[in-house]
Amino acid sequence: MSASSLTSQISNLTPQNNNYVIIVAGGSGTRMGAPIPKQFLLLKGRPILMHTIEAFYHSKTNPQIITVLPDEYHAYWEELCVEHEFNIPHLLVKGGQTRFHSVKNGLDTIDDENALVAVQDAVRPLTKTGIIDLSFTHAATHGNAVTAVKSRDTVRQLREGASTHLSRDEIYLVQTPQTFVAAQLKTAYKQPYSDKFTDDASVAEAAGFAINLIEGSHQNIKITFPEDIALAEVLLGL
Amino acid sequence: MSASSLTSQISNLTPQNNNYVIIVAGGSGTRMGAPIPKQFLLLKGRPILMHTIEAFYHSKTNPQIITVLPDEYHAYWEELCVEHEFNIPHLLVKGGQTRFHSVKNGLDTIDDENALVAVQDAVRPLTKTGIIDLSFTHAATHGNAVTAVKSRDTVRQLREGASTHLSRDEIYLVQTPQTFVAAQLKTAYKQPYSDKFTDDASVAEAAGFAINLIEGSHQNIKITFPEDIALAEVLLGL
Repeated sequence: MSASSLTSQISNLTPQNNNYVIIVAGGSGTRMGAPIPKQFLLLKGRPILMHTIEAFYHSKTNPQIITVLPDEYHAYWEELCVEHEFNIPHLLVKGGQTRFHSVKNGLDTIDDENALVAVQDAVRPLTKTGIIDLSFTHAATHGNAVTAVKSRDTVRQLREGASTHLSRDEIYLVQTPQTFVAAQLKTAYKQPYSDKFTDDASVAEAAGFAINLIEGSHQNIKITFPEDIALAEVLLGL
Repeated sequence: MSASSLTSQISNLTPQNNNYVIIVAGGSGTRMGAPIPKQFLLLKGRPILMHTIEAFYHSKTNPQIITVLPDEYHAYWEELCVEHEFNIPHLLVKGGQTRFHSVKNGLDTIDDENALVAVQDAVRPLTKTGIIDLSFTHAATHGNAVTAVKSRDTVRQLREGASTHLSRDEIYLVQTPQTFVAAQLKTAYKQPYSDKFTDDASVAEAAGFAINLIEGSHQNIKITFPEDIALAEVLLGL
């Protein structure tokens, strides 16, 4: 991991391997109606982002952790880490204008083209370590591994006012982690930004890489609305 | 509504209008790991199905209610109605081998081709009355109205081992109610059964009818897994 004025290292103890996770927290949290971005909202008494970091820290893969946060929240996050006695080592990187630019900032801190790099939503705190480890091992073999679940609902596609039924068996709702060989992700992120890039798989696909899906979990939810916190607390208790 | 040996009327007080809802409860509930079908599981102390019936009863549309249940649960349901002092009038109809056959049994009790008929999942107890009323008024004008929400997740389509990105703006996850002019739904349900019929919209589309989507709500959840009950209780309290 390269040093940079854009980054600050929280603790010096990093794992000695070639695996990384970029945890992206770009959200302003406005949809939650909360005064602070949702990655800092409390889940069982601790900020959501800490749960997300812990999931990767406790996986067998034990990747080096790169957390991308808007610059204006770095000091606040460091205070939260002190307050909650949160000591898991991670590199703190400045966020960009969009998720794309934030991931790119995180990726720029990784020099090794042969590394494996997972990208994870900061507000997806319930990812199981089994999925994390599968994501890395599958990406090592196939170039990438994108976590997804089959839709539980019937799906329709609306085009020019007309809607058509899509086969539910073919439709996957995409989650994170999305894990790539670093060279592949770096090539993909050299493309100019497009507002069609809603996740890393869409960026890699646009660069010509075939995307491999792995099975996620319907419990691996993204915290988006206020009720999601209550649901996450229920799921943590199961 | 025709009398039939297949049906039994719970209370004789039915609304005097030309609107109907077929509430379909065909599920065996095995995915819940529960000993009883999930439409009977308790939500805030009362069977899920009662919440679903109440939503329609309290809508301005106030449709005549047709509840389709597996035959072997009719007596149990009637006991539950007594136990919970549940007096909302509804017609009880025997379920069929699949959801398709159950809806068809419900539809066979409606004689009027000009009626408006909503179909509702019994295990979708949080549908707001506003959506129900919109569904009927929209169907009256457009022939049908299918409740759906935009996907919150990025969506991929997997075909022959290769996955491709779909534009999230075009992808709708389908819910109920799905409301139709009776003639349209009756024509659609004359088709032979196909396992591609996952909802009423897919049946109507296969019969050549254009499907009109109306905006649902992410809170209009279907109770499928044990944690969904806890989530529904949270949502009821919002």
